[in-house]
Amino acid sequence: MTTLASQSASPSPVTDRRDDLYRRFDQVRDTTEAFCRPLQVEDYVLQAHENASPTKWHLAHTSWFFEKFVLEAHVPNYEPFRRPYYFLFNSYYNTAGPMHCRPNRGLISRPTVEETYAYRRVVNERVHAFFDQASDVVFAEAADVIELGLHHEQQHQELMVTDLKYNFSCNPLLPAYRDDLLDTPEHQEGSQTQACGSVTPEWLDFQGGLVEVGHPGNGHGFSFDNEHPRHRVFLHAFQLADRCVTNAEFAAFIADGGYERHELWLSAGYAWATQRNITQPLYWFRDGAQGNQRDMEIDAPTGVDGWSEFTLAGPRAVHPDEPVSHLSYFEADAFARWAGARLPTEFEWEHAVTQTQAPEAPPQTDDPTRGSMLDDARFHPVPGSNPSQATSNQLQHAIGNLWEWTSSSYAAYPGYTPLPGALGEYNGKFMCNQYVLRGGSCATPISHARPTYRNFFSPESRWQFAGLRLAR
Amino acid sequence: MTTLASQSASPSPVTDRRDDLYRRFDQVRDTTEAFCRPLQVEDYVLQAHENASPTKWHLAHTSWFFEKFVLEAHVPNYEPFRRPYYFLFNSYYNTAGPMHCRPNRGLISRPTVEETYAYRRVVNERVHAFFDQASDVVFAEAADVIELGLHHEQQHQELMVTDLKYNFSCNPLLPAYRDDLLDTPEHQEGSQTQACGSVTPEWLDFQGGLVEVGHPGNGHGFSFDNEHPRHRVFLHAFQLADRCVTNAEFAAFIADGGYERHELWLSAGYAWATQRNITQPLYWFRDGAQGNQRDMEIDAPTGVDGWSEFTLAGPRAVHPDEPVSHLSYFEADAFARWAGARLPTEFEWEHAVTQTQAPEAPPQTDDPTRGSMLDDARFHPVPGSNPSQATSNQLQHAIGNLWEWTSSSYAAYPGYTPLPGALGEYNGKFMCNQYVLRGGSCATPISHARPTYRNFFSPESRWQFAGLRLAR
Amino acid sequence: MTTLASQSASPSPVTDRRDDLYRRFDQVRDTTEAFCRPLQVEDYVLQAHENASPTKWHLAHTSWFFEKFVLEAHVPNYEPFRRPYYFLFNSYYNTAGPMHCRPNRGLISRPTVEETYAYRRVVNERVHAFFDQASDVVFAEAADVIELGLHHEQQHQELMVTDLKYNFSCNPLLPAYRDDLLDTPEHQEGSQTQACGSVTPEWLDFQGGLVEVGHPGNGHGFSFDNEHPRHRVFLHAFQLADRCVTNAEFAAFIADGGYERHELWLSAGYAWATQRNITQPLYWFRDGAQGNQRDMEIDAPTGVDGWSEFTLAGPRAVHPDEPVSHLSYFEADAFARWAGARLPTEFEWEHAVTQTQAPEAPPQTDDPTRGSMLDDARFHPVPGSNPSQATSNQLQHAIGNLWEWTSSSYAAYPGYTPLPGALGEYNGKFMCNQYVLRGGSCATPISHARPTYRNFFSPESRWQFAGLRLAR
Amino acid sequence: MTTLASQSASPSPVTDRRDDLYRRFDQVRDTTEAFCRPLQVEDYVLQAHENASPTKWHLAHTSWFFEKFVLEAHVPNYEPFRRPYYFLFNSYYNTAGPMHCRPNRGLISRPTVEETYAYRRVVNERVHAFFDQASDVVFAEAADVIELGLHHEQQHQELMVTDLKYNFSCNPLLPAYRDDLLDTPEHQEGSQTQACGSVTPEWLDFQGGLVEVGHPGNGHGFSFDNEHPRHRVFLHAFQLADRCVTNAEFAAFIADGGYERHELWLSAGYAWATQRNITQPLYWFRDGAQGNQRDMEIDAPTGVDGWSEFTLAGPRAVHPDEPVSHLSYFEADAFARWAGARLPTEFEWEHAVTQTQAPEAPPQTDDPTRGSMLDDARFHPVPGSNPSQATSNQLQHAIGNLWEWTSSSYAAYPGYTPLPGALGEYNGKFMCNQYVLRGGSCATPISHARPTYRNFFSPESRWQFAGLRLAR
Repeated sequence: MTTLASQSASPSPVTDRRDDLYRRFDQVRDTTEAFCRPLQVEDYVLQAHENASPTKWHLAHTSWFFEKFVLEAHVPNYEPFRRPYYFLFNSYYNTAGPMHCRPNRGLISRPTVEETYAYRRVVNERVHAFFDQASDVVFAEAADVIELGLHHEQQHQELMVTDLKYNFSCNPLLPAYRDDLLDTPEHQEGSQTQACGSVTPEWLDFQGGLVEVGHPGNGHGFSFDNEHPRHRVFLHAFQLADRCVTNAEFAAFIADGGYERHELWLSAGYAWATQRNITQPLYWFRDGAQGNQRDMEIDAPTGVDGWSEFTLAGPRAVHPDEPVSHLSYFEADAFARWAGARLPTEFEWEHAVTQTQAPEAPPQTDDPTRGSMLDDARFHPVPGSNPSQATSNQLQHAIGNLWEWTSSSYAAYPGYTPLPGALGEYNGKFMCNQYVLRGGSCATPISHARPTYRNFFSPESRWQFAGLRLAR
Repeated sequence: MTTLASQSASPSPVTDRRDDLYRRFDQVRDTTEAFCRPLQVEDYVLQAHENASPTKWHLAHTSWFFEKFVLEAHVPNYEPFRRPYYFLFNSYYNTAGPMHCRPNRGLISRPTVEETYAYRRVVNERVHAFFDQASDVVFAEAADVIELGLHHEQQHQELMVTDLKYNFSCNPLLPAYRDDLLDTPEHQEGSQTQACGSVTPEWLDFQGGLVEVGHPGNGHGFSFDNEHPRHRVFLHAFQLADRCVTNAEFAAFIADGGYERHELWLSAGYAWATQRNITQPLYWFRDGAQGNQRDMEIDAPTGVDGWSEFTLAGPRAVHPDEPVSHLSYFEADAFARWAGARLPTEFEWEHAVTQTQAPEAPPQTDDPTRGSMLDDARFHPVPGSNPSQATSNQLQHAIGNLWEWTSSSYAAYPGYTPLPGALGEYNGKFMCNQYVLRGGSCATPISHARPTYRNFFSPESRWQFAGLRLAR
Repeated sequence: MTTLASQSASPSPVTDRRDDLYRRFDQVRDTTEAFCRPLQVEDYVLQAHENASPTKWHLAHTSWFFEKFVLEAHVPNYEPFRRPYYFLFNSYYNTAGPMHCRPNRGLISRPTVEETYAYRRVVNERVHAFFDQASDVVFAEAADVIELGLHHEQQHQELMVTDLKYNFSCNPLLPAYRDDLLDTPEHQEGSQTQACGSVTPEWLDFQGGLVEVGHPGNGHGFSFDNEHPRHRVFLHAFQLADRCVTNAEFAAFIADGGYERHELWLSAGYAWATQRNITQPLYWFRDGAQGNQRDMEIDAPTGVDGWSEFTLAGPRAVHPDEPVSHLSYFEADAFARWAGARLPTEFEWEHAVTQTQAPEAPPQTDDPTRGSMLDDARFHPVPGSNPSQATSNQLQHAIGNLWEWTSSSYAAYPGYTPLPGALGEYNGKFMCNQYVLRGGSCATPISHARPTYRNFFSPESRWQFAGLRLAR
Repeated sequence: MTTLASQSASPSPVTDRRDDLYRRFDQVRDTTEAFCRPLQVEDYVLQAHENASPTKWHLAHTSWFFEKFVLEAHVPNYEPFRRPYYFLFNSYYNTAGPMHCRPNRGLISRPTVEETYAYRRVVNERVHAFFDQASDVVFAEAADVIELGLHHEQQHQELMVTDLKYNFSCNPLLPAYRDDLLDTPEHQEGSQTQACGSVTPEWLDFQGGLVEVGHPGNGHGFSFDNEHPRHRVFLHAFQLADRCVTNAEFAAFIADGGYERHELWLSAGYAWATQRNITQPLYWFRDGAQGNQRDMEIDAPTGVDGWSEFTLAGPRAVHPDEPVSHLSYFEADAFARWAGARLPTEFEWEHAVTQTQAPEAPPQTDDPTRGSMLDDARFHPVPGSNPSQATSNQLQHAIGNLWEWTSSSYAAYPGYTPLPGALGEYNGKFMCNQYVLRGGSCATPISHARPTYRNFFSPESRWQFAGLRLAR
């Protein structure tokens, strides 16, 4: 497992690494459960879309990952807690055996929530025992996969947030995960769209040239295989907006007929929008109506241009200065064309961000340029700084707040090698018809983000916290 | 509301009727909840098919029915408990207002199970208050709808059983509702199919002629509008089997290539079976494999010809002498053709049964000719009597055990008039592409069954306890 | 082949029957080709719907029928003209071997039209040789199937008309089969709907009672197996309209919101209409727009309420007094409910018509009560008589003009036995989810119609010339 | 129209360009019709897949292109030949007006083939008149679009070949376009797969570095907007196979379980193959069976490993040394992984080819390194040279024979600007979820090919002549 090994090797001896992983294991496992505390038992069961797995499934699948790839692989004569869980909680690893059908995850009431927590506890205990008892040699063999398991669970923490938001949004009652999450924006009632065409970010200049991208590897902390190898690319000079596109700007696009003007859209995007009657970002609604529950009246506060949106704090006015979220690649691309700009490539984005940050470094908790992240437990992006600060000549919220669509199709870096065995299915097999997003969102754990991180989704995906930053 | 009124008018004064309905209201409402007691909270949420609504939804919908059609209609200035419940828990009454999308009932975690029970309690209290306080005139106006509401809830009791069975069957773990429901059949392991073609019920003879069918109406207890008016039909002489087709007989049909022999099938049925790869009754499986979870091994006891089946007591051996259940109309029809017989018409069935029973009378609890019913809390049919009893020259288990497919398309009786208003949507609008089933099943309440009762499902439906009795 | 034999046996000796069939064989085969004369080669290839087979396919399939069931069955060592035609031109006879996929019939350019006519010629020559050379014994064995083949080809003559109309209607140019077919109706431009609710046919009274229905059998000419056996049914007293519902009456239904009023519709019908956005009879259009070619302007004469319709003579004004055609069962049923009436049962219809006509007799060519038929080569219904004639107290156009939907689900008569062998698939296997139509249409050959004839289609079918006559 | 202008401006005066275009206009228009000469009228009508338009449609659409973008745009008061043709024969230019629904092109028998040729003749005459009469100023404005129209028609020449092949392949008779196209390969009957893993092309070395790609523009002949601007990219050192993968090599992949081994496939590709039961290249079949006509026996010569394939000369043995064709991107990618190699990027491919050829130059007719092309009228690739020649250290058949899948997602070059107006829809709007193919095929006109040419299709497309060349 050379790639993983080289990525996470550290100067500290095995004992130090064992202690570090032990501590972080407990942290990550706790964070997962902490997010669930406000939920009712029924909430754990829902799956309103193939992509939006039940909370219960995430709790179990992240445990299965440790059981399958750490315990079974490294504990002699390991007996699984419940053998059928190997079938139920495998996600997509064909190499690891047959698996339950993904769209049916919401049809499973048993194991119950309580039994699922019991599963977590048993796996925790067994991993603890492994931490306590494994020889240095054995532990060294397992350490990289434990590390991977932690980042895997952090990815699922993000999915738990976005999946829950989606699943809740399909309930006509529009229930709140926690109604104290967000403060009410002031003075937003009935606010108007800004004048058309008023997309005026500050433009930051970059010279381009032959630059290096990708994770620096060995000794620089964790990374996924798809961030490797670090390599050279040639960039032409470009400009990047200092901030993401705002709700007010996107409302102006809508008011200008943006969804109906075919010349702004990719052909596949226009077909997607017209066939599904898509006329606004995923969770926006107006006139008390929303796609899923068209015939039920909802009382909701209204914001820019009369728009409301569903959030994990329930229905809320759309705030003009917050960045627009829950866009598909198609919508991001059409907006950019409307604004006379374009999406950046993933390498333009990475190059720009790494001018001021180490490519492999997560943001500091108190970094004022980072946006909202999972650790803030807000689950909603924050607005950009006010205009006086906007002259600071820096990228705001590149890390955090929203994943930012790039124009780059998700592909292998030159010389890319997937991990061996089942874990080789982690990233590589998805390199088709997906587009890269960068930066991390308000649902991403801080320690999970870094400039070289490559997220990817199909171009019609909207249930992630995804927005856009213009380039030209 | 003439039809209903005439059906349920009784010689007793309003006060007697009020007492009777009050008592039965509490009984029926309690029975619904009693069935749910063994469930876990998560079980209430599942909907694995458009037709298999969540238990939670049934609990709420049956309460909505009383709230909408009794309380709102007859209590001045009535305020609904929660107005959005009118949207969420309306099933298909367009006249009563807009409604939630049926296939999405399983995507709703709120109201929670606890809140749903609270809804039931409030509706119960308000109906109790109505019983206590309504004037005789007002009560007389409402009485027929209360009566209808009770039978409506009994229909949903049956659906709660069949829907739960379907929903549980989609869990690869094949969980049991209660594992103490059924005793283990003796000596069934590895039993063989009977000799091919050995369908040898006792045949009972009926002369036919110009006979009356349908509910006798006024003064004969409750009935649905579709059982009216009582009218004459001409029947040719026919024979009816004394018992339903057994599992052993159906296994012989399978072993004889029944599912592959196009000449036995209706064209639509053959297309249905081949396109969906249907090769056995809904819940049968063999060799540790079942449709929904083909790749997971299940340890299950095996019965006739190696077949196992899923029941509400979990996986179980298929018992050769029990009647075969969970058949579609297509399978019932193909089996009958294979056996050199046919399905009876609904009028042949009704005429045969009413030779010994009043058309409108529910069975006696201790009637030895009735099959298993909801009150027995077995949720599985019982085998026919042994051969020595088979000479008794009577229809066994015509009421109870299984709904019996008839060859009759569900249609209006001559002169049929639906109820006025929203309740006119109860039965009449479904009179197309459905086939009539008669008799009631092991999930039907005893007091809800009678010979004139017309159940109906589309010909591919299999999730009900439905079997067949041969005619010729 | 007892059923067929008994149906068509005649007192004449075999020689007479041979001569008669020979003559009719040539007539029927010629009629098929005569219909095709106005077509261009390209027209023969089209299949715009699974149900609307190419003209070329009909030409070949009707030849295959004679080749397969007459020549192969009765000529020793018969060699097929082209063996692959057995695969290509079998329609649905599983017993006769594998077959080409029905929806793909329009993807076959070879055999060409010319080759298809060559196939017909060869089959004709071989059947002629069989007529000339078969011994009396052999011929007697084949005679019934030849007779069946003739009626089979007449059925396909009707389908050639309706399929061509459908296929042409999918061309935005709305081409005419022959533009001299229909005279232009006078004074129809901009005519208004009649006053709402003005459905005022003359009502004819029938006493009902225990009556006989079905074909009288042996010695009464040809019939299909599904018309047998003749049997008794009990009818309640009923009334039947003297004429079919007119275009003006149906336009009033539309103007009254008929398509939007759920209470008028069967549940399945309302779902069908709303999901497919159906708001008028199949070929009606208005404001230069039609479903298939919404964005192309069409200049078309307008009739009642501004409606135009597509006919085999091209676009034409909707004539108020012509009977409304190309309705589904769902639309016919909804209209009847709107008009305060209902559809007749197939037995009411047959009983009413056989009061004045022999059950098995085709109409006379000059019978003034028959409607337009294939022999008239008009391919469009004629209007009913004028009011002064309407007092004649008779059923107008019961035979011809339009097939009339009945409320009867297509089912076996008591004691029904399908033909043996492959021909047993002709009718019986379709007895599910279809509704019976009676009477014959403007596309039915005169010699192919009789009062006992049972046509059947699924309730959403609209491409046949189908209308309705009210009952109550 | 700056891009087009700059691409095709030439030092010659307008008169020279007019003469040149006039001559080439007639050549291209004739070539289109020459391909059709062996067809029967019925063949022109077929559309067996949304992507496989009828020959008749191609004939008309290429004429519409000249009528709409040359005549209407540059002839004052132009009256269209038939106005409805603007609707029927617009392909996907929303800016040019509404259009007929693409999957319905095969449902249109009128205009007939003869009328379609008449349309071509009228357009030809009117373009001739424009050549003859337009002033120099007007002609100069139109010249670039005429040039584009010629290349547009050449693209449709290729599609006419591939669409006809697809449409014919859906006929169970597997008819030949011309049965004299291909000579019978010798000694192929029953030949065996080569030893597994024997993919042994000669590997050619390239150094990479910062290189230029894209069309050189102004003064270098025609190009599409998507080949611009020429720009720098950084390439790592790589190797490219001297020839494409052969049928024998692909048969070895199949024999090695290639289609069943999930680890070789992209996730989307594996789902595609398993859900559609894809187990061989598009036109391969074996044991007399093929997907579309599984139940009809076909006598076909067999080649490598018993495989036959459908060609425009009818069924034929699969030749081991010919390059494997009609692969999807998914299959090409899986094969490359199986062979321990990968697909080249489009820039590696272009860089390698332009080492010996000018980037903008079509091949010479007698260039021995080019493969089969449209001008050869073979419509099938030729085998690579024999081993003794294989030491020539050059890329064989990079231009012609087969389009070669690259790993590059189709995207805009840095600074890409689409053409203005409706023609801006030509290329740019398809830059999503498509992969680039390079080189041209046996259906590409010689004068239409060049090293910078970017073809693109969605990754599941197989009906083009597409294969692969390995890189590593």
